[in-house]
Amino acid sequence: MAVLSFLTTTHFDFGAIQRTGKELSRLGVGNPLFITDKGVRTVGLLDQVLAASGIEQPMIYDNTPPNPTEEAVNEALAHFRESGCDGVVCVGGGSPIDLGKAVALLADSGAELQTYDPMQGGAKRISAVAPLIAIPTTAGTGSEVSSGFVIVMNDGRKATFASPKLTPSLAICDPELTMGLPPQLTAATGMDAIAHCIEAVLSPVVNPPAEGVGLDGLWRAWRHIERAVQDGSDREARWQMMMASTEGAMAFSKGLGAVHAMSHAAGRIPDLKLHHGTLNAVLLPAVIRFNAEAAPEKIARLKQAAGLGPDADLASEIAQLNARIKLPATLGEMGVKPAMMDELVHYASNDLSGRTNPRAASPDDYRQLFSEAM
Amino acid sequence: MAVLSFLTTTHFDFGAIQRTGKELSRLGVGNPLFITDKGVRTVGLLDQVLAASGIEQPMIYDNTPPNPTEEAVNEALAHFRESGCDGVVCVGGGSPIDLGKAVALLADSGAELQTYDPMQGGAKRISAVAPLIAIPTTAGTGSEVSSGFVIVMNDGRKATFASPKLTPSLAICDPELTMGLPPQLTAATGMDAIAHCIEAVLSPVVNPPAEGVGLDGLWRAWRHIERAVQDGSDREARWQMMMASTEGAMAFSKGLGAVHAMSHAAGRIPDLKLHHGTLNAVLLPAVIRFNAEAAPEKIARLKQAAGLGPDADLASEIAQLNARIKLPATLGEMGVKPAMMDELVHYASNDLSGRTNPRAASPDDYRQLFSEAM
Repeated sequence: MAVLSFLTTTHFDFGAIQRTGKELSRLGVGNPLFITDKGVRTVGLLDQVLAASGIEQPMIYDNTPPNPTEEAVNEALAHFRESGCDGVVCVGGGSPIDLGKAVALLADSGAELQTYDPMQGGAKRISAVAPLIAIPTTAGTGSEVSSGFVIVMNDGRKATFASPKLTPSLAICDPELTMGLPPQLTAATGMDAIAHCIEAVLSPVVNPPAEGVGLDGLWRAWRHIERAVQDGSDREARWQMMMASTEGAMAFSKGLGAVHAMSHAAGRIPDLKLHHGTLNAVLLPAVIRFNAEAAPEKIARLKQAAGLGPDADLASEIAQLNARIKLPATLGEMGVKPAMMDELVHYASNDLSGRTNPRAASPDDYRQLFSEAM
Repeated sequence: MAVLSFLTTTHFDFGAIQRTGKELSRLGVGNPLFITDKGVRTVGLLDQVLAASGIEQPMIYDNTPPNPTEEAVNEALAHFRESGCDGVVCVGGGSPIDLGKAVALLADSGAELQTYDPMQGGAKRISAVAPLIAIPTTAGTGSEVSSGFVIVMNDGRKATFASPKLTPSLAICDPELTMGLPPQLTAATGMDAIAHCIEAVLSPVVNPPAEGVGLDGLWRAWRHIERAVQDGSDREARWQMMMASTEGAMAFSKGLGAVHAMSHAAGRIPDLKLHHGTLNAVLLPAVIRFNAEAAPEKIARLKQAAGLGPDADLASEIAQLNARIKLPATLGEMGVKPAMMDELVHYASNDLSGRTNPRAASPDDYRQLFSEAM
């Protein structure tokens, strides 16, 4: 049975953050916890949101790690409770938004985060979630409209939590906030959006509207990622990349695939602190080759959306795009070592995202895929 | 500012109506008014829904006219109130669903329908709307997920009402209910879905996800409409056409265009009782030619979605498709007379749908377009 549901209302345009105060009032939030990270705060983006929020003495948590941890969730949650907060405003890339979603989930619950782990049937235990406004400062994660978040747990897993109840109450997408994003981060987050669009379309879950949204996202991202990387002040390219990011996450309401299973497995390695979008970019070609036979019509539509001819090889085209926007070509270049293989295979094989890969991937398949990407 | 919002949760598949009872309970509705028409009741479709609803003594209104009127709305509303109903279940094509939406809107209001006319700022006056489940029995209208409805008012206008609050609480799309639809109605409703996808994509309102959904709907409908017309028992074609219909209406959350403005103007003529989908089919070619210059990139994407080459003429292709599925080629064949021209132009020029046509259409333009279609 297909269940089609798109839940987040999204205000999208240059200047959209000016709505923040109005929307907080509409949601009845008088004392939100602003969740961000040091980088976003340092470059002044948090201040822009604070000014637009109308909150006079804002509560702030800015200690979000690059791959948010359960420990950081509990730290922010303690801040939320001690400050008597009644909602969350996340300002940042995927990390502060994901961390904020975890805080909103736990705000009215006495339980530990793992209670809600969907790998153990936890999605059903979710009842009340605190109001949350998500304001992305990168164009890639799409976490502002997605129903999931990813946290590195105390037990070492990078766990995915997902439920329609975790979808933010509201997203405010203001491409102005991405104008200062440096080229490398523009490239890496942009490829995250492309990975979302591609894996969502390929997921076997039946949801044609979400596929249409994913194809449209790919259409936009493929035409604008290089422009945004080459000239960060290209406002049209920034708008289109942020839209592709939002669309990618709307699309992956139907699930992701092996790229994300593998990316989560590599992203959890504490010493490497690898960027999620860069990992996705590097992993895409091998996984697309692995999936091609299982979904030929979808691969054809993806190529058409990207403006590629019917005879083009999508995997090679992505590898070439990665090279043009100066992303690494292999996991080896990123510091992943063959000695990590068993661990990578173990975590990828047990990741939620792999369940919606169009072709079932065994541990041996993951080993092979990691080898190719290495 | 783009506002992206998709509100209806849709349960979609063969057998989906078996959820009716469960979903009524979930919505807290114990005594719904089942709104349908004589045709749907006669062929036994209402009985299937009643059996699945678990309601022992169901309240039924089956007097919906082909183009629902304000008078019929008030008749059904009186039934709703006298029977102490607490919700609405619409079973049928666009007419019963639209009529049901009007009843749900007025259920808790003491006001007349025209109070909510968006041409007079009425959308803002909508507060509470009764819970409504929409169960389509045709594949075309998409009214089950749309935020609008159309009623022939006592003053003779065919008025469009629109607000996110008018979107059904839930849609249950079961292609099984369309298996018995005769070829002519399959063709006419199917072209309604195609018209929705095309006009929604062409609307200048900024909403890329909705455009992606519209393009996907066109992709499905173009590939399956002839199969569904030629062999009504083709389950795959029925599934795809119903999906295209749902997607068309999700897409037109960004508005429609001149086809619908003209179709509403012709559909209101009481003596002719013209079918909305057939009118849209006949009007599409002339309007697409009129709009082509204003939206060349979108026309190119529409052609790609339909599987047509870049040099194809979309307007001619639609005219040829109409001929293949045995729909009329002109308004003249449908009984529209040149003497009706002033009236047609007047109503088309003042229709809500025309406001989102990609190229502004003056009364003279509408006169010209009607002449071409005549």
